[in-house]
Amino acid sequence: MSAMKETILKTSRFSVERVTHLLPNGHTHSREIVRHPGAVIILPVLADGSVCLIRNYRVSLDQELLELPAGTLEAGEPPVECAVRELKEETGYSCGKMEPLCDFFMSPGILDEHMHAFVATELRPGEPAREEGELISNSILSMAETEAAIRSGEVKDAKTIVALLYFSQFWIANKSS
Amino acid sequence: MSAMKETILKTSRFSVERVTHLLPNGHTHSREIVRHPGAVIILPVLADGSVCLIRNYRVSLDQELLELPAGTLEAGEPPVECAVRELKEETGYSCGKMEPLCDFFMSPGILDEHMHAFVATELRPGEPAREEGELISNSILSMAETEAAIRSGEVKDAKTIVALLYFSQFWIANKSS
Repeated sequence: MSAMKETILKTSRFSVERVTHLLPNGHTHSREIVRHPGAVIILPVLADGSVCLIRNYRVSLDQELLELPAGTLEAGEPPVECAVRELKEETGYSCGKMEPLCDFFMSPGILDEHMHAFVATELRPGEPAREEGELISNSILSMAETEAAIRSGEVKDAKTIVALLYFSQFWIANKSS
Repeated sequence: MSAMKETILKTSRFSVERVTHLLPNGHTHSREIVRHPGAVIILPVLADGSVCLIRNYRVSLDQELLELPAGTLEAGEPPVECAVRELKEETGYSCGKMEPLCDFFMSPGILDEHMHAFVATELRPGEPAREEGELISNSILSMAETEAAIRSGEVKDAKTIVALLYFSQFWIANKSS
């Protein structure tokens, strides 16, 4: 569909664009879209099958969420490299294997953020390199505990729920078949 | 945590706020947050157990996604009323029952959007009342087909994946136990 586009705000982590479309009925329709460089989320699986989540203070909500480690793509950065970097920065873990799990869009009504999910294994603990303003701590849970935390509503972060439920429903079943 | 807040953009569907925090180490840290009124997503279950999804053209991605019906809260609107309204507008279905499923945050790194998921049953077909600019058509799938579409990557909308996997993993198991 043909569209006119105009950037109306730039910030350090996203911009806002006004998109005007010519509809099939001849009318025009404008809406503002938040443009985002894309991001990764990492499901770090320890040797005993437990998962490393993080407790992460979120400025947007003024509360701490229980999430998987994640981060935003830098310009030109391949998602798998971003995943290795963010896993190390946020949790301290280096990994021997980083495998793609699935990918999805976070809120396509207003936001073009494309999320790439990975499974990290062969983990080696180390020192995190958290950015200023990141208030983060690791939280190791069994898969049964993560599922209970999703079911009870303790986990409220959409990308974390997608990655964990996709992993338990499709990845583990696939690996064991 | 104490914070200074300043609105730097208003659009018809969201605004952008700059939040400046005083960190425990005495430094300040600013970031821009997309403020959103919150939204609902509806999982409409037909009498035979199949699900009504929609094919929805998304301006943000310039592509059609396979999603559950959803919509944004109007000022002061209770989520359950919004769910009944959006189900009717987008799919044509009225429902006898609209039950809360779960709730979650779409992209808390930049966006405060809070999503309320519902299960709609006792459905009666009718005429949709789609808004101008909404290019939508219904798509009825069995639960097995929706799971295959998530697994294959055909479903790429995060809220739709959360609602469907939460439903199949926790709701159906709960109802049948």
